[in-house]
Amino acid sequence: MNIKAPRGTADVLPKEAKKWQYVEDTIKTICDRYHYEEIRTPLFEHTEVFQRGVGDSTDIVQKEMYTFEDRGGRSLTLRPEGTASVARAFVQNKLYGEANQPVKLYYFAKMFRYERPQQGRMRQLNQFGVEVLGSADPAVDAEVIDLAMTSYYELGLRSLKLVINSLGDKESRTNYRDALIKHFTPHKEELCEDCQSRLSQNPMRILDCKKDRNHPSIQEAPSILDYLNEESRTYFEQVKTYLTMMGIDYEVDANLVRGLDYYNHTAFEIMSEAEGFGAITTLAGGGRYNGLVEELDGPDTPGIGFGMGIERLLMALEAEGKELTLDEQLDVFLVAVGDETKKEAVKLVHDLRRNGIQVDMDYQGRKMKAQFKAADRYQSKYVLILGEDELQKRVINVKEMDTGKQHEVSVDQLADLLKQKLLGGNRYE
Amino acid sequence: MNIKAPRGTADVLPKEAKKWQYVEDTIKTICDRYHYEEIRTPLFEHTEVFQRGVGDSTDIVQKEMYTFEDRGGRSLTLRPEGTASVARAFVQNKLYGEANQPVKLYYFAKMFRYERPQQGRMRQLNQFGVEVLGSADPAVDAEVIDLAMTSYYELGLRSLKLVINSLGDKESRTNYRDALIKHFTPHKEELCEDCQSRLSQNPMRILDCKKDRNHPSIQEAPSILDYLNEESRTYFEQVKTYLTMMGIDYEVDANLVRGLDYYNHTAFEIMSEAEGFGAITTLAGGGRYNGLVEELDGPDTPGIGFGMGIERLLMALEAEGKELTLDEQLDVFLVAVGDETKKEAVKLVHDLRRNGIQVDMDYQGRKMKAQFKAADRYQSKYVLILGEDELQKRVINVKEMDTGKQHEVSVDQLADLLKQKLLGGNRYE
Repeated sequence: MNIKAPRGTADVLPKEAKKWQYVEDTIKTICDRYHYEEIRTPLFEHTEVFQRGVGDSTDIVQKEMYTFEDRGGRSLTLRPEGTASVARAFVQNKLYGEANQPVKLYYFAKMFRYERPQQGRMRQLNQFGVEVLGSADPAVDAEVIDLAMTSYYELGLRSLKLVINSLGDKESRTNYRDALIKHFTPHKEELCEDCQSRLSQNPMRILDCKKDRNHPSIQEAPSILDYLNEESRTYFEQVKTYLTMMGIDYEVDANLVRGLDYYNHTAFEIMSEAEGFGAITTLAGGGRYNGLVEELDGPDTPGIGFGMGIERLLMALEAEGKELTLDEQLDVFLVAVGDETKKEAVKLVHDLRRNGIQVDMDYQGRKMKAQFKAADRYQSKYVLILGEDELQKRVINVKEMDTGKQHEVSVDQLADLLKQKLLGGNRYE
Repeated sequence: MNIKAPRGTADVLPKEAKKWQYVEDTIKTICDRYHYEEIRTPLFEHTEVFQRGVGDSTDIVQKEMYTFEDRGGRSLTLRPEGTASVARAFVQNKLYGEANQPVKLYYFAKMFRYERPQQGRMRQLNQFGVEVLGSADPAVDAEVIDLAMTSYYELGLRSLKLVINSLGDKESRTNYRDALIKHFTPHKEELCEDCQSRLSQNPMRILDCKKDRNHPSIQEAPSILDYLNEESRTYFEQVKTYLTMMGIDYEVDANLVRGLDYYNHTAFEIMSEAEGFGAITTLAGGGRYNGLVEELDGPDTPGIGFGMGIERLLMALEAEGKELTLDEQLDVFLVAVGDETKKEAVKLVHDLRRNGIQVDMDYQGRKMKAQFKAADRYQSKYVLILGEDELQKRVINVKEMDTGKQHEVSVDQLADLLKQKLLGGNRYE
């Protein structure tokens, strides 16, 4: 019986979900400060969007997509990454026609890649990502990197490494490509099968092949940085200057090419350097993709973005021993004793909740002692005790669990009292 | 070229996304008050989970699921509804063994149903839902209904109708089923094809057939309420009493059976009565499903929950003319004039954002006048002006757009000044 979650997927249970909420809320606040707005695209797209937007020759498209036909015979694919979908939405909804440019977008989205599951690599993964469309200003490249770094920083991560590179413009890349083909062709037979086909299709991808990474021909390969034309070199210099102005440290790695076809100019990755972090240290990656929007039938539009794995972010927080400050306590638990009081208890709990107070009660038919135990397990700040005596007098006993103090309060004044104590009078108002 | 979002799906663009965020944040706060915690299950499950958990004979399983094989030959299905997945997670993660019972869960999740798209019916839809597992207390039924009603109420909806029914326990339903078969058999040939097969499989479903709804035999059908045994009748009376105690109005509709196989005892729907709301008026629906967890190989566990469509909720808000209060203004826009100032502007914007201030600048190479226009379009509260003069003096001009007042501030004091003005000193602290 297949009663487990599918391989490579996982449930996020309540205790863990609180961490996810904290991370997402923090990042959303940061996006707001950077003036990025949320976009939500469908979970699947016509397969062609990824074939054209990610690139037919990429591992993602060739090996890792969840592609299927719907009941109407359409070929659909569960989103394997975020950029192509956002670019498709940018074109379809004509966002290039908006007065406010560039269009600065962020998303939280599930992605799907059929890979061998391992720590930090799931088949269903969660990404936070941003895309800026409509500006070719190197200050945007710096802003995007800054947003990623600030997100990690404010969540508490400190052991990070930012690696950047430039893949140059089309002219630069064409020249570099020719140089790479010339360089690798004599070694073709020594490279892995994938790299042999990469040699004609996209030789830059040989540079970050996991199998061939120690082959001497890779160590000795020409550097893209020597092939950047004047314009590309100036562009890269400006990005670096802006990062320096912001006080953001970086390393340049000429072998950083990223796995997707659509990148040009700036490419970057952020790695965890925390001890005990898993083998896959990349936390986020992104780059510039001028030309992608045109590829998807839109007008010529520059763009840049990144994707950041939430699972890996949580792993990095753990590796750095960073505890998120989560509120685990229940505000109020109502102990109701006796059958007659139950109805009144239900009403009271309803009224308090409508007044903005967090409150719970027993639904297991527990006796008084067991109800107190439940209140303890929930780490309740206040326990209300309603018995038949209290019911008749229209009062309730309020016990402050911190101090053990207990006093009788009129039912009519209860909500106001608790609001004052718990919410400072205005938390929800 | 398939460059559009797939049929029955839609992009949520930034302006609309703000409404979604507001709705979700409001509902999450309410869930917190009711002491429900979030769970996130994978987007797809082994198909068997839905065949067993939703029911092989339902329209959902027979006609509407997105089912496909992954690259490993597993039959997977995109989640068509929320309950079966949560019940599967409850079993797999042994949540029945937790000390705190019942387990009160909520989720926000995308669902997928292959139906003919129309207003209020998408193939990818978004639901908020809750599931309470582990309690057979009728007060939980009332709590769950209350949570749904409170969510709508606090978002501003007023034209709502709550309809409830009891489907009774197994014994009651068996007796009722026999009565229905007896009643409908003489009319079999007059009913639609679907109803003819429902007659043997699940005759209760005839009662909410959209095609046959005006057939006299449906009007004259026996009522489930006359077939409830003592225990089921008492249970239903208690649910109604609790709702009344909470001041929640309801109608009883004996024909409300819901489309899923797993319901028993309480079933309910919440409809919009707003004028101009579309043809499909159901906003939320749910019910009790004691027995479902066992169906998924878990221990005998009572459960109840509901699902609420977010798209329809937003439609209802619009139909009632309820505007959500969204902040559309940008706090600060920095106008930087001259090439030399750009680097300093980038640094300043970074510093202000790290100080918790929302700020943006120009990335389009606009001249000063066009930058001011951009600031206007963003409805900026403050505009900072940095020219070469200011740069040399280490000052910046701060213009308050409300009043038109402008004054020079030292760059070093800028963040503190803006924090005080915008955040009251503690918005992000």
